Amino acid sequence: MNAPPSSKYKLLLSYDGTHYSGWQIQDNAQSIQTCVQTALATALGQNIPIVGSGRTDSGVHALEQVAHFVCEKEFPLQKLLFSLNGLLPPDIRVHALTPVPLDFHARYSATSKIYRYYLHLQPVASPFTRLYSYHIPYPLDLPLMKKSAHFFIGKQNFTSFSNEAHLGSASRDPIRHLKRLEIMETEQGLFFELEADGFLYKMVRNIVGTLLEVARGKLPIEKIPQIFAALDRRAAPSTAPPHGLFLVKVLYA
Amino acid sequence: MNAPPSSKYKLLLSYDGTHYSGWQIQDNAQSIQTCVQTALATALGQNIPIVGSGRTDSGVHALEQVAHFVCEKEFPLQKLLFSLNGLLPPDIRVHALTPVPLDFHARYSATSKIYRYYLHLQPVASPFTRLYSYHIPYPLDLPLMKKSAHFFIGKQNFTSFSNEAHLGSASRDPIRHLKRLEIMETEQGLFFELEADGFLYKMVRNIVGTLLEVARGKLPIEKIPQIFAALDRRAAPSTAPPHGLFLVKVLYA
Repeated sequence: MNAPPSSKYKLLLSYDGTHYSGWQIQDNAQSIQTCVQTALATALGQNIPIVGSGRTDSGVHALEQVAHFVCEKEFPLQKLLFSLNGLLPPDIRVHALTPVPLDFHARYSATSKIYRYYLHLQPVASPFTRLYSYHIPYPLDLPLMKKSAHFFIGKQNFTSFSNEAHLGSASRDPIRHLKRLEIMETEQGLFFELEADGFLYKMVRNIVGTLLEVARGKLPIEKIPQIFAALDRRAAPSTAPPHGLFLVKVLYA
Repeated sequence: MNAPPSSKYKLLLSYDGTHYSGWQIQDNAQSIQTCVQTALATALGQNIPIVGSGRTDSGVHALEQVAHFVCEKEFPLQKLLFSLNGLLPPDIRVHALTPVPLDFHARYSATSKIYRYYLHLQPVASPFTRLYSYHIPYPLDLPLMKKSAHFFIGKQNFTSFSNEAHLGSASRDPIRHLKRLEIMETEQGLFFELEADGFLYKMVRNIVGTLLEVARGKLPIEKIPQIFAALDRRAAPSTAPPHGLFLVKVLYA
């Protein structure tokens, strides 16, 4: 007797990370992954694990996170999409549900990820962006910050800008290829857009923390190569807070 | 003995109306006005009533609400602004505090008000705009809606688009001059921008409710003059929900 054919599906999700402990399932905390798996279990009547493109931290948001799951059961796609959005809390949405080849993997098939980090640069914070941007009421030296961004571009060892050791995954390859680090000015501030083949734990927030130290005149720009060379997280300035960070897009070949 | 000289001050405020019963002080409900008066009382050590440019309803937001208060005590303006923002919850902010002539009145001196109403026109709602726009997943006839907007422009009797009777203020003058009703398309939908010499209770939301009925093909455009002529709220379609509405600006001569 043949086993029923399995099918693989890709989910496109967005979420407001404010009230969650992050993507990854954790004991005693509400994670995005738990919510999506619970909704999927209710909709399909069976427990199905989902695999995300990567974890996002507590308080970090996603405009477009990708996850996959395998299911033997057949179901109408549009109906399941609709059911999931009915079952999920309104701060998590499923925007698309599509069949993918069995060799697709949300994490390992990803070729690039794009993150954005938003700064609100006004004297007084805003009720509307306070949960989605880091409010900085003091002046920043933008030209200097733009100049210092170049040091981060390229394929290099990002150990000094990673908290992998805290995650118990210090053995992961610390070489990453940061393809872009763009600074885009907005009406109320700016955002950093970073694209890499992959990001280490807290890498974006550590890079932003360092750029901010440069921009407020506390870190001379020529110290950045020394920080890279130290291969030590303690050599770099502190981590920027999570609520300004958005996973924008996961790219596949 | 002379009474101490009084001074008048203008407050520029923004607020996320989601968790409030509206601007106006109410029994058994948390209003914006209560929060601001409580903060002012704590900062100045005396109870001082504030007068807003007008009430906003429960769930309605403000990018720039104006209020005034009179105070005999002298205080450094920047320090009070800073104290108020420290005392207020983060979904209410004071952006400016300036002295004004004693004959300034937040409500009666206003010459115009600008409101915006946001629509999110995507198949699936967004975690980020769900509290700040009305999500409409079905198709709208935009050209027809734009055409019907012209019926509302001008100085006319807006009784059919007002809920004043519910407010016990049916004797207020129902003639209003709607100077502009613009429809601006955005990346995710559109917003209506309305400017008038003043708005009746729920007038913006009732106009938007009617425009939506036209745009979904349920109300023939030529019926709009009949609705105006009826001078009866029951003649017009239902009120659009509050969370898409923003008080954008109050204009003074």
